[in-house]
Amino acid sequence: MLGNHYRTTGRKFLRVAMALPKTLPQMSMFNSRTFASYQPALHKDRLNAHVLEAEYAVRGKLVIMAGELEKRLKQPDHGLPFDSVTYCNIGNPQSVGQPPLSFPRQVMALVTNPALLEEKNMHLTSQLYPADVIARATTLVRSAGSIGAYSHSKGVEECRNSVVRYIEERDGFPADPENIFLTNGASEGIKAVMQMLIRDSNDGVLIPIPQYPLYSATAALLGAAVIPYQLDESKAWGIDFDSLRASLAEAKARGVTPRGMVVINPGNPTGQVLSTENMSETIKLCLEENLVLFADEVYQANVYGDKPFRSFKKTLRELGPEYDACELLSFHSTSKGFLGECGFRGGYMECVGILPDVMEQIYKLMSINLCSNVSGQMMTEMMVNPPKEGEPSYPVYQQERDAIMDSLKRKAKKCAEVFNTLEGMSCNHAEGAMYLFPRIQLPAGAIAAAEKEGAVPDAFYCVKLLESTGICVVPGSGFGQAEGTWHFRTTFLPDEAAIDKMLTLMATFHNDFMKQYS
Amino acid sequence: MLGNHYRTTGRKFLRVAMALPKTLPQMSMFNSRTFASYQPALHKDRLNAHVLEAEYAVRGKLVIMAGELEKRLKQPDHGLPFDSVTYCNIGNPQSVGQPPLSFPRQVMALVTNPALLEEKNMHLTSQLYPADVIARATTLVRSAGSIGAYSHSKGVEECRNSVVRYIEERDGFPADPENIFLTNGASEGIKAVMQMLIRDSNDGVLIPIPQYPLYSATAALLGAAVIPYQLDESKAWGIDFDSLRASLAEAKARGVTPRGMVVINPGNPTGQVLSTENMSETIKLCLEENLVLFADEVYQANVYGDKPFRSFKKTLRELGPEYDACELLSFHSTSKGFLGECGFRGGYMECVGILPDVMEQIYKLMSINLCSNVSGQMMTEMMVNPPKEGEPSYPVYQQERDAIMDSLKRKAKKCAEVFNTLEGMSCNHAEGAMYLFPRIQLPAGAIAAAEKEGAVPDAFYCVKLLESTGICVVPGSGFGQAEGTWHFRTTFLPDEAAIDKMLTLMATFHNDFMKQYS
Repeated sequence: MLGNHYRTTGRKFLRVAMALPKTLPQMSMFNSRTFASYQPALHKDRLNAHVLEAEYAVRGKLVIMAGELEKRLKQPDHGLPFDSVTYCNIGNPQSVGQPPLSFPRQVMALVTNPALLEEKNMHLTSQLYPADVIARATTLVRSAGSIGAYSHSKGVEECRNSVVRYIEERDGFPADPENIFLTNGASEGIKAVMQMLIRDSNDGVLIPIPQYPLYSATAALLGAAVIPYQLDESKAWGIDFDSLRASLAEAKARGVTPRGMVVINPGNPTGQVLSTENMSETIKLCLEENLVLFADEVYQANVYGDKPFRSFKKTLRELGPEYDACELLSFHSTSKGFLGECGFRGGYMECVGILPDVMEQIYKLMSINLCSNVSGQMMTEMMVNPPKEGEPSYPVYQQERDAIMDSLKRKAKKCAEVFNTLEGMSCNHAEGAMYLFPRIQLPAGAIAAAEKEGAVPDAFYCVKLLESTGICVVPGSGFGQAEGTWHFRTTFLPDEAAIDKMLTLMATFHNDFMKQYS
Repeated sequence: MLGNHYRTTGRKFLRVAMALPKTLPQMSMFNSRTFASYQPALHKDRLNAHVLEAEYAVRGKLVIMAGELEKRLKQPDHGLPFDSVTYCNIGNPQSVGQPPLSFPRQVMALVTNPALLEEKNMHLTSQLYPADVIARATTLVRSAGSIGAYSHSKGVEECRNSVVRYIEERDGFPADPENIFLTNGASEGIKAVMQMLIRDSNDGVLIPIPQYPLYSATAALLGAAVIPYQLDESKAWGIDFDSLRASLAEAKARGVTPRGMVVINPGNPTGQVLSTENMSETIKLCLEENLVLFADEVYQANVYGDKPFRSFKKTLRELGPEYDACELLSFHSTSKGFLGECGFRGGYMECVGILPDVMEQIYKLMSINLCSNVSGQMMTEMMVNPPKEGEPSYPVYQQERDAIMDSLKRKAKKCAEVFNTLEGMSCNHAEGAMYLFPRIQLPAGAIAAAEKEGAVPDAFYCVKLLESTGICVVPGSGFGQAEGTWHFRTTFLPDEAAIDKMLTLMATFHNDFMKQYS
């Protein structure tokens, strides 16, 4: 019965198997047919075509290869020319050593174990935690009831109120907690509204090229038409409205109804901070073309240059009341910024200019999932409401925040500078976000070699880089890029020593690669 | 600029508004059109029809009404005939006072604040927490790297390994961590696999009647055909295979391809624990009809009668290797059981008999969401791997667990007993889960009165109940029920004093209602 037709998980199972009775209950009352004609319902030939079409490069084949190399490295005679894998494929700061901020983690420790907030334990708790940590935890537990209870489908009220205060202080314009949905990361809200918007494959969404592949994947899953628009590498990855309007006209000509427009600002994978002109022009375009504006603003705290972040909401409001009809959804997340709390899957969506009965539909859709995880909701609250000057936790908070931001700035600058010294590589500086998207002028020999292997040339380059150095980056083709250009996306999240090592390895690899294929 | 065309959030905003410059930047370079012709893209006439069709009664209109009543109760002269709202509409134990178990919360307090696991703080930590709490937290943090990092898209390895050990011990058959996906609650996995399975509106899924509305909502969102099958109230809500086969034949006759079958065991809203015969028959049917079996087993720890829970996996394996082709997905959640940690949105999906390239597709789909929240993953680990006898936390764990389970048992029994004493009400006992689904023989006068208001008769009853007593239950029509029968679903989660009060109020209301409409 426990024969080898089951995959066992090794030794672990023996214990259980041996405890079983030798003969298992007879099921002779059933006709023991062999069901030879069984046709699996979950078979590649019979799956939803949209699911098969979706792609997600950030955790794609190259990352699976990296994982296999990492396993091989654990063997004594691995024969690899490097001793560790450097993951630069994903914006996952704490996985590459970024420490969590103390304040939110201390509060989380109390809200998850509210026994420590009881009067009888307070003498101990107050030795462990500053007064503002205890006060915040008390407020959050009171508002949620328990971190272990489903919340309102929009999120815990106190958390939404803090989001509103944050938005109002950021923009100088009012917000409303009824228009805030707390979500599992930013993706959940994006997917929900896209799902409402897309009726069939004649509905299209404007997506930047290059883009974060969540958007192309979501469009593919919904069977939406992608209407690509170019970010102009020669203009610091600004929006090229001429090519955008041409792409829009072309889509309409083939029967597509444009329904929405995605803008990622600061940009992923491109790192630009959009100009006010670009943003205003975008809003105008959305109003002219009846488009919902999806503003992916998850990198709003990751800004490194002189251009400050400005939200689409602020830009919209400053344009004046005649622009109020604009339907805007703004997304934020706990995963990015200097907070970097990806694992908490916290985030919010602000709905601006959405009709009341559509708000009800969004609420219904979110209520089918009951609510986003409450730990993530509380982490979102702490992101938007950090310790303030004069509060006990502020000095530590300020120091931790500045250390992370200063280091990110230095690393962003250094990486771009080194990339720009390499033959056939050029790279815009990161004005924001967590990525660089250098362009590689691949030699004809490399393109031919890639084609011979049936590989996309930039994926070929990235595989060679991984195999030679252990550095894992994502090919530009995973994000989209102007025809005939090749790029890769790298984070600059590993610590400074690791970044130095990575840059040295990369430079050596790149020079060798260019020599080999020139 | 900050005039009344914006909805403000009251006093809060004044502070911000006053800090703004009086004149905002001029945007005169843009053509300030009024965009009078703007047509909102997110308009009810232009939304995805599937989204409009989806319904979710558990957080539907009645619950919104309850929320409004609760607000009214805060006013001194509310004029309502009750002083609090009793929420029996949703299985959300901690929202109605069920205390969290100490062990998992203590571990969570350490994994969220790993500073307490550092050697230098251990003298304090070991005063606060038992050794097994500290050991578990250390193991979990080591495996995840950080609770703040995205995990593998299937989940943290240590957590999946614990799930595997749990399943193996539960069933006596092997499991494989590669076949486990840790998910945000159980819903996420269900929705992902349904999305893969349903190609178009000709694909259908067998859904029990009554059912948990996640299934009808998911089917509606995907545009799938629902193939209803009856649970037989007269046979303790067992599966009626005759009517099931008739429904299947009828669906095929109208061109529907049956693709999957949902079974909820223990049942929601019906509370039955299925017989082994019912389960084996289900597996046989799935193999005969090429159906994926969705086993919603989230109430596996909520069993109150003599019939123990047995998993579909165990039943399948015991039927023998000739049944191995069966494609089975089993779902579990941290929200239910005696754990009741809904807010953590933890859960897992075990994939059994799924083809390797389909497993890759599931992985891809989950990777687009990056990962489920890591707090929920860790809570899942503690659900499947609680303290064992002899470990320091075991005595407290055992006592807390038994107190919750004993109380649930008493409340389940008492509620059913009282319902069965009421005129025109009958109720099967809950063998498992968290709900009772009593049947009400509504008098003709009540049905006529409901029709006059354009209301479904059982919704009419539930609204009256809410308005008279503050008790919030969900009408049977939100779950589906045999034609011409009326029910409601109630949880038995409030504490015993509240349940006693609820039963008294309900009995009075019910008798008055029956008298009024007879």
